[in-house]
Amino acid sequence: MQPETLNPPSFPSLSDLESEAARKVNPRVWAYIQGGAGEERTLRANREAFARRVLRPRVLVDVSTIRIDTHLLGQAVSAPFYVSPMAYQREIHPSGELAVAQATAAKGILAVYSTLSSLSLEDIAQGAPQGRRWFQLYLQPSRESDQRLIERAARSGYSALVVTVDTPILGVRDTQARAGFAIDGSVPIGNGADVAPPSRTATFDGEAYRLRRDTSATWEALEELSRTSPLPVVVKGVLTAEDAHKALDHGAKAVLVSNHGGRQLDGVPASLDVLAEVVGAVGTEAEVYLDGGVRRGSDILMALALGARAVGIGRPILWSLAVGGPEGVARYLDLLKNELVNTMALAGRRSIAEVDRTLVG
Amino acid sequence: MQPETLNPPSFPSLSDLESEAARKVNPRVWAYIQGGAGEERTLRANREAFARRVLRPRVLVDVSTIRIDTHLLGQAVSAPFYVSPMAYQREIHPSGELAVAQATAAKGILAVYSTLSSLSLEDIAQGAPQGRRWFQLYLQPSRESDQRLIERAARSGYSALVVTVDTPILGVRDTQARAGFAIDGSVPIGNGADVAPPSRTATFDGEAYRLRRDTSATWEALEELSRTSPLPVVVKGVLTAEDAHKALDHGAKAVLVSNHGGRQLDGVPASLDVLAEVVGAVGTEAEVYLDGGVRRGSDILMALALGARAVGIGRPILWSLAVGGPEGVARYLDLLKNELVNTMALAGRRSIAEVDRTLVG
Amino acid sequence: MQPETLNPPSFPSLSDLESEAARKVNPRVWAYIQGGAGEERTLRANREAFARRVLRPRVLVDVSTIRIDTHLLGQAVSAPFYVSPMAYQREIHPSGELAVAQATAAKGILAVYSTLSSLSLEDIAQGAPQGRRWFQLYLQPSRESDQRLIERAARSGYSALVVTVDTPILGVRDTQARAGFAIDGSVPIGNGADVAPPSRTATFDGEAYRLRRDTSATWEALEELSRTSPLPVVVKGVLTAEDAHKALDHGAKAVLVSNHGGRQLDGVPASLDVLAEVVGAVGTEAEVYLDGGVRRGSDILMALALGARAVGIGRPILWSLAVGGPEGVARYLDLLKNELVNTMALAGRRSIAEVDRTLVG
Amino acid sequence: MQPETLNPPSFPSLSDLESEAARKVNPRVWAYIQGGAGEERTLRANREAFARRVLRPRVLVDVSTIRIDTHLLGQAVSAPFYVSPMAYQREIHPSGELAVAQATAAKGILAVYSTLSSLSLEDIAQGAPQGRRWFQLYLQPSRESDQRLIERAARSGYSALVVTVDTPILGVRDTQARAGFAIDGSVPIGNGADVAPPSRTATFDGEAYRLRRDTSATWEALEELSRTSPLPVVVKGVLTAEDAHKALDHGAKAVLVSNHGGRQLDGVPASLDVLAEVVGAVGTEAEVYLDGGVRRGSDILMALALGARAVGIGRPILWSLAVGGPEGVARYLDLLKNELVNTMALAGRRSIAEVDRTLVG
Repeated sequence: MQPETLNPPSFPSLSDLESEAARKVNPRVWAYIQGGAGEERTLRANREAFARRVLRPRVLVDVSTIRIDTHLLGQAVSAPFYVSPMAYQREIHPSGELAVAQATAAKGILAVYSTLSSLSLEDIAQGAPQGRRWFQLYLQPSRESDQRLIERAARSGYSALVVTVDTPILGVRDTQARAGFAIDGSVPIGNGADVAPPSRTATFDGEAYRLRRDTSATWEALEELSRTSPLPVVVKGVLTAEDAHKALDHGAKAVLVSNHGGRQLDGVPASLDVLAEVVGAVGTEAEVYLDGGVRRGSDILMALALGARAVGIGRPILWSLAVGGPEGVARYLDLLKNELVNTMALAGRRSIAEVDRTLVG
Repeated sequence: MQPETLNPPSFPSLSDLESEAARKVNPRVWAYIQGGAGEERTLRANREAFARRVLRPRVLVDVSTIRIDTHLLGQAVSAPFYVSPMAYQREIHPSGELAVAQATAAKGILAVYSTLSSLSLEDIAQGAPQGRRWFQLYLQPSRESDQRLIERAARSGYSALVVTVDTPILGVRDTQARAGFAIDGSVPIGNGADVAPPSRTATFDGEAYRLRRDTSATWEALEELSRTSPLPVVVKGVLTAEDAHKALDHGAKAVLVSNHGGRQLDGVPASLDVLAEVVGAVGTEAEVYLDGGVRRGSDILMALALGARAVGIGRPILWSLAVGGPEGVARYLDLLKNELVNTMALAGRRSIAEVDRTLVG
Repeated sequence: MQPETLNPPSFPSLSDLESEAARKVNPRVWAYIQGGAGEERTLRANREAFARRVLRPRVLVDVSTIRIDTHLLGQAVSAPFYVSPMAYQREIHPSGELAVAQATAAKGILAVYSTLSSLSLEDIAQGAPQGRRWFQLYLQPSRESDQRLIERAARSGYSALVVTVDTPILGVRDTQARAGFAIDGSVPIGNGADVAPPSRTATFDGEAYRLRRDTSATWEALEELSRTSPLPVVVKGVLTAEDAHKALDHGAKAVLVSNHGGRQLDGVPASLDVLAEVVGAVGTEAEVYLDGGVRRGSDILMALALGARAVGIGRPILWSLAVGGPEGVARYLDLLKNELVNTMALAGRRSIAEVDRTLVG
Repeated sequence: MQPETLNPPSFPSLSDLESEAARKVNPRVWAYIQGGAGEERTLRANREAFARRVLRPRVLVDVSTIRIDTHLLGQAVSAPFYVSPMAYQREIHPSGELAVAQATAAKGILAVYSTLSSLSLEDIAQGAPQGRRWFQLYLQPSRESDQRLIERAARSGYSALVVTVDTPILGVRDTQARAGFAIDGSVPIGNGADVAPPSRTATFDGEAYRLRRDTSATWEALEELSRTSPLPVVVKGVLTAEDAHKALDHGAKAVLVSNHGGRQLDGVPASLDVLAEVVGAVGTEAEVYLDGGVRRGSDILMALALGARAVGIGRPILWSLAVGGPEGVARYLDLLKNELVNTMALAGRRSIAEVDRTLVG
């Protein structure tokens, strides 16, 4: 990790990151990264939800010392944000998930790795053994595959299991399809034969449409996973109070409010817009996380004030990976930490514990 | 019907359909298809109404089997959407209404044919005898013409009568007028002498403005039609609870919430915006349908959740007709079914019966 | 008046009128016509207020006969709209106010003529003696000038007096100033020595700013005018319930809700947005008119439904004057009548009396 | 001060000022002037807040005499607006702060000078000894520096102390950073060794982030300042009722509602949007001022109607400085006074005392 190899003029601030990445990534992959589902209403809504709310700062607080470290499921991390699970990172940079592993380990940041990572979960773990890492699970057509993946993750030092529940079938991703990026067997999957590629195909059998077998998973499947998994379970993709309650009733330790970056069902709300509903339902019993549209320090502050324990960062990680590989990711993590410290100081908050509901008007 | 003759790159997804059609249709006809009334506020509002609402999806539901078939007025159809009545289809493609007839019959979709079809209602029926078809009626200057048209429709296997009530006179269609597309005797009407062309002309007689005779039709005319028609009557063009009640009081079996695709009175609400009012008024007694702005599977889901029994598809059918003739229409119908299945799976709904009010936030 | 001299393709619909006029009028005068005050917020708001509201049409009403004639202050007119008073019409077309006089007389439309007309009020009256005409009065530095103008108007067959109260000083008109259009002695005023040109200059005398003498006019001045004038008084430029009450208390027979086309105090509400307030205050005792942003038949319908007895048309008259002189104005009046008839038919309203509050949702 | 040396066509109205200035200022400095923090949401919000509200004007008031003079902290000024403190004015024009000093003195307008002025506070005072001037203080790393600056200001005729409390650390200013404008030692500071340049750097010490020492200032520091300062204290940068109360409890005589022109914490509300909250909290006990987005006479009127005693003008002063030096500033002040007089006349308000809450709807 040699930050000085990063060309500074090309990446002076967060405002420049996305456009810089757009110049470096091939258009087919860029469509995959940037695209959302359908008409991309939810994709846009995720960002607009932050712009619609205001912060109420307090002044003349002694902010000479700011702490942004926190604990997630009892595990210490240096900041209340983490890297969201994202598939196929070697399509963006040859170092693939190793870049995220090294940068997050160096910065004390939690990273969540996708079932569909380009590299195997074991290789990722070995690339930065001391890093904090969780494993994201797409439920597989067979429960046995699920079990094997969970055992592999536990053996390799992953310390929580993030079960994605909003993807029984892939969303309608026209941007991606038009660019010719197909999620099928042609993109290599690091985790091998335990993983089946996702699909958006439904087959009509003359009476009804049949989806792939893994789409039959219910809360009972989650309950079994929670009971047998050696790792605590986080349910990713909850957008209602009802499902948040169900998640806890079926063994989850935390709930992740997410609409999959606007890539699954177009028309669902911005994740920030339903955060209060979910926090109101289960916030006293479990940790609630959020992803979707988080770009800057002030976004983190806002989500935390509305009750999130931590927020996931998605596309900007891929942008910084594309622009600078491991050093790019590390630089983004530093900029984001700096912005969070800066905005906390300007809001008159000295620690995560002081970021409360009164901060959002 | 040979789908392989359709050039796939030109029509990869619903997002591309409209722009592809724009390249193929001559500008005069395109203005007729796309244009709305006045300043096209209602035309735009129809689309925006879908974008303003959000879906509340439920997760971890077993969605391995999805059924989208339903019944409309007791008649089985393969999906809760139908092709809206649209005039002059041979202006768009030489196959005209036959393309819609063949594609809908092949896909088990209901089609409604316009009084102003390019082909006669008999020819349409013979082109796809097994298809489900309803007949749309513009009330004619003489009730006798109405009766003759209804009898012809009944004899040719049309199984319901859709009476349009929002067009006593044509709207102010500047887009169309500017492009030089006149709805007058120059465009051939397939149904022959029983049909008078519509008009937007009013004549001042020195004291008041006189409209053509058929503009005098009232609820009593509808009542007589309902009583004498061998086919159940659907009233198309209702935008208020008051008129929905009147429709049922005067013999209608179903109500179609519609603003004529924004082509009649500019400034009326988006049809989706008054759906709840109409469903609240008559939804327990009669089926309520909706058209206006429906483009995608998620739109259908939203309208159904708000109480529509089925939704009409208008302009996209003409786009797909222009792009690919019968195969184009068939492909659009397939894409739309696929999207509906997809969005139902992502929303955690396994059948039309499970698409209820809690799905819209 | 020979309509056939008008080049029809250049003016096929109301949508084309403004852009056509922009091509014909010299930029300096165009800035005067189009420009508003300050940042033109109120100018834009006048139009947006119509777009924000919706019409609730009723169907299956016998609309074979539509009447749009009405009475204003007991005086019969052929439609519930009139030509607003606008200064300097010879800057736009050599026929100046005579074009409006001839076209409105031919069509049975009321015209209101400005104190600052290019032609004298006597010449205007003689150009179309049988026309319905009212006289708009800017209060002059001396009450004697006011009296002389009123007497001249009464003698020339003007049948009401529209007293403008929103212009003690001219608004901040940067668009106009930048284009170099100055309202000063250089533009000839038809009504001669009785009229002082308006001013936006205030002079600092070392303690306070002094405006021209006529800015001292108060409700007492209006009361005196009302008592002595042989013509009924309409107060133009009222935007609050308080001032509407005052107008009636001081002798006015009608109130005109107007923000001077967005040309005086930028930031005041759209006139349509305060119509309900004024109608609620005085609508049972006096006629209420509205101007500001009215362009089309559906706009008229909306204002009438919200309680206006009639609406004034401003800029579109100047556009049609520029495009076609007297024939252009006549054509615009015809188009507007046609649109009003059309929208009434589509809304299920057969006469002005049937245009009530239930029509706006 | 020779107004006639100003090229009139280049600056005919306030609408032209910003674009004219953009042509004259070098891009690096322009980014510093114009840029806000983060994504510039608050920067835009400051302007939009004025556009969202409406004025309710009253008519037929005798407005032949308009007074706009007022008192701020008991000190007579010719108008209820003042020049906000802004750093580094010699970067914009060689005359720097002297231009503001001379123009404001000539026009009877209060000017507030920044701790970070290009010229020393003594030189500014000597450049226009008779001018009304206040001193803005950034709390320094040592309280002794604060005391020395205050004593110097008092000795040089500054008559109030404006303590900025929203800048313990500089905001995230990407626009500025990208343009290469660094606020560091390279830009000369006129007030010498008593002033430390501000910083946006936080240093991580292995456990928490440490900001510069002056970020530890609390309300107790303000209380000590208030008690020992010979000048009355205004607290600048308050955005909540809670902090407004605290300001008064700790000795402040007035509160300035400000978000630092959108340059500090992006995402805080427009200052106009929280004015009512602050006025409601302390308006009966203390004077409340506002800055942020004020450009025109109607903006001033609106802020005053909502309870501000005076408003600060920021960027437009720099624009007029860039365009015309001292004469440019004087011309802007004249235009702004003229607009205020004009809008008061059109609103029916003859003095500042008559600008009350009923003026804003």
